[in-house]
Amino acid sequence: MPVPTIEWRGGHVKILDQTKLPNRLEFIHCKEIKSLWKAIRNLQVRGAPALGVAGALGVVLGIKDSKARTYPNFERELRGVVKYLGTSRPTAVNLFWALGRMEQKARENKGCRVPRLKKILLKEALKIMEEDKSACRRMAKFAAKLLKDGDVVLTHCNAGALATADYGTALGAIYRAKEEGKRIKVYADETRPLLQGARLTTWELMKEGIDVTLVCDNMAADLMRQGKISKVLVGADRIASNGDVANKIGTYNLAVLAKYHKIPFFVIAPLSSIDLSIKTGSQIPIEQRDKSEVIEWGGRRIAPRKVGVYNPAFDVTPAKLVRAIVTEKGIFRPPYRQSLGKLMANK
Amino acid sequence: MPVPTIEWRGGHVKILDQTKLPNRLEFIHCKEIKSLWKAIRNLQVRGAPALGVAGALGVVLGIKDSKARTYPNFERELRGVVKYLGTSRPTAVNLFWALGRMEQKARENKGCRVPRLKKILLKEALKIMEEDKSACRRMAKFAAKLLKDGDVVLTHCNAGALATADYGTALGAIYRAKEEGKRIKVYADETRPLLQGARLTTWELMKEGIDVTLVCDNMAADLMRQGKISKVLVGADRIASNGDVANKIGTYNLAVLAKYHKIPFFVIAPLSSIDLSIKTGSQIPIEQRDKSEVIEWGGRRIAPRKVGVYNPAFDVTPAKLVRAIVTEKGIFRPPYRQSLGKLMANK
Repeated sequence: MPVPTIEWRGGHVKILDQTKLPNRLEFIHCKEIKSLWKAIRNLQVRGAPALGVAGALGVVLGIKDSKARTYPNFERELRGVVKYLGTSRPTAVNLFWALGRMEQKARENKGCRVPRLKKILLKEALKIMEEDKSACRRMAKFAAKLLKDGDVVLTHCNAGALATADYGTALGAIYRAKEEGKRIKVYADETRPLLQGARLTTWELMKEGIDVTLVCDNMAADLMRQGKISKVLVGADRIASNGDVANKIGTYNLAVLAKYHKIPFFVIAPLSSIDLSIKTGSQIPIEQRDKSEVIEWGGRRIAPRKVGVYNPAFDVTPAKLVRAIVTEKGIFRPPYRQSLGKLMANK
Repeated sequence: MPVPTIEWRGGHVKILDQTKLPNRLEFIHCKEIKSLWKAIRNLQVRGAPALGVAGALGVVLGIKDSKARTYPNFERELRGVVKYLGTSRPTAVNLFWALGRMEQKARENKGCRVPRLKKILLKEALKIMEEDKSACRRMAKFAAKLLKDGDVVLTHCNAGALATADYGTALGAIYRAKEEGKRIKVYADETRPLLQGARLTTWELMKEGIDVTLVCDNMAADLMRQGKISKVLVGADRIASNGDVANKIGTYNLAVLAKYHKIPFFVIAPLSSIDLSIKTGSQIPIEQRDKSEVIEWGGRRIAPRKVGVYNPAFDVTPAKLVRAIVTEKGIFRPPYRQSLGKLMANK
């Protein structure tokens, strides 16, 4: 079983510090909202589904010391907490989805007294975590149908156990396929600048006994040209209603390469990553991160200090390059506006 | 003027240690062949044209203490020196071209006594260096014609002054365009694993006052999708007679992306990079390098020690993705088997 990425430990949130992997297995204990906000901001906890869980638990931390005695006062505090958590990272919609759900839950129970409301919200956050776990299992079951014995999968960033409350989205498909007796080999993009592929994906795949080979991001095309890749599987941070997918920078690169080499490109993500409120990927806010992520490593500089740097955390892959989107409700095919729209209407 | 990459200093070879850039400007002084071999192997000197010069000067170092008194004995030693230098790096053909030319020069002068032969070979090596300088200028003049005021060029690895004896191949075009008054902006791929783009290309472009922005290799596709790139310019390590191009790993990635986004992709390289003895890129030997280059940085590990790693130093871009190849003899267009063949026949 994977090491839990995020847990509620009666009063505080225990987080596996992913910035320390693979060298050290360390945990941080967030007792108040600010340290959780920092953990999200610094990518100590990351991955769209895990950010949903972190956001919900963050709300619990944020309101646990509330002295409010009326609902309007409590709601005002809650709104502040939600707003603050929302500033941590802008792209993964799961965070906003979870925050919205917590607010909604409070509204539905506005008649309750504040101590009771706090308990209800904790229960809701734990429910979001449980739902993420079960969504992982169901996504994996559907997505494993796309994999056959002998497949060689290229993946990007970390869409595994470390990105969710359970065993992942894209990597979940591989774990499930293995359980079904299929032999799957994986190439993992290192995923510059923060090396989630090198540090996290290789680590968790090796722990689960999956055959994994690490490559630099610029080697994917060469592998494809040599016929070494049969499928590309990635996760998502936000999916627009037309099927455009925002995911870790470099995903779009792979989608274009896959198209050129006629390799199917699949996205695996829970419903909470789908944002029907936006029409296309161009409306997804893309987080720009600090240039130090690109020009420094381990405190050492690898480029001239004053050089200009472009460092978006995500890119957008247009729907036309996505062969299918797998959610916990099944495998969805283009045109996504119809298939996803129908899916969400029936949710 | 750029800092000289490689120089002959009356008895030894002075090399700018490119593994120390951009943090330190250090030189190494190779007094015997073994230290030069190591400098090539460890990429302290690198870049196909510079490797030609280094190989020729390596021959000079290798035979300078020869005690041979007859040509056959001298030739035997020379052959050993050439063979040894050829084991340093297998892909850049310029190295083998220069070594072959040195051997040829010896054969042409087999009637001379050994001390005289040594002088002739030194003169030939210096001639190779001078020819590389003038080839850079001529390539740049032709390649600058492909650039217009306002162009935004994406480049990969370092095809600049640091890769040649003068101001470079792909970057030479940019320097020349600037001299002609054209405003050119450059995006430089960092070029994993050894970060020649981050460390070397940004450094030399900034020194020459060129507007340069550093990106991770996986960001190129995103830039292209946003219409931010108008041309892609790269160098070459070896070009087959059909126009297939071996160059730094990640080049093929850019060629596919450029094709998809309808951006012209140009290769700039001297004639010494063209290998008419091979028909296609599949015959180019691709150097596989140590996994430590990928899983370590500055002595720190960034991936599990036992992970499998694929680390080719180069990839092959098929001719059909190359809009033009620029040499010191002009701009060559497809079909390359004809255009390059004719060119080399008239050389």
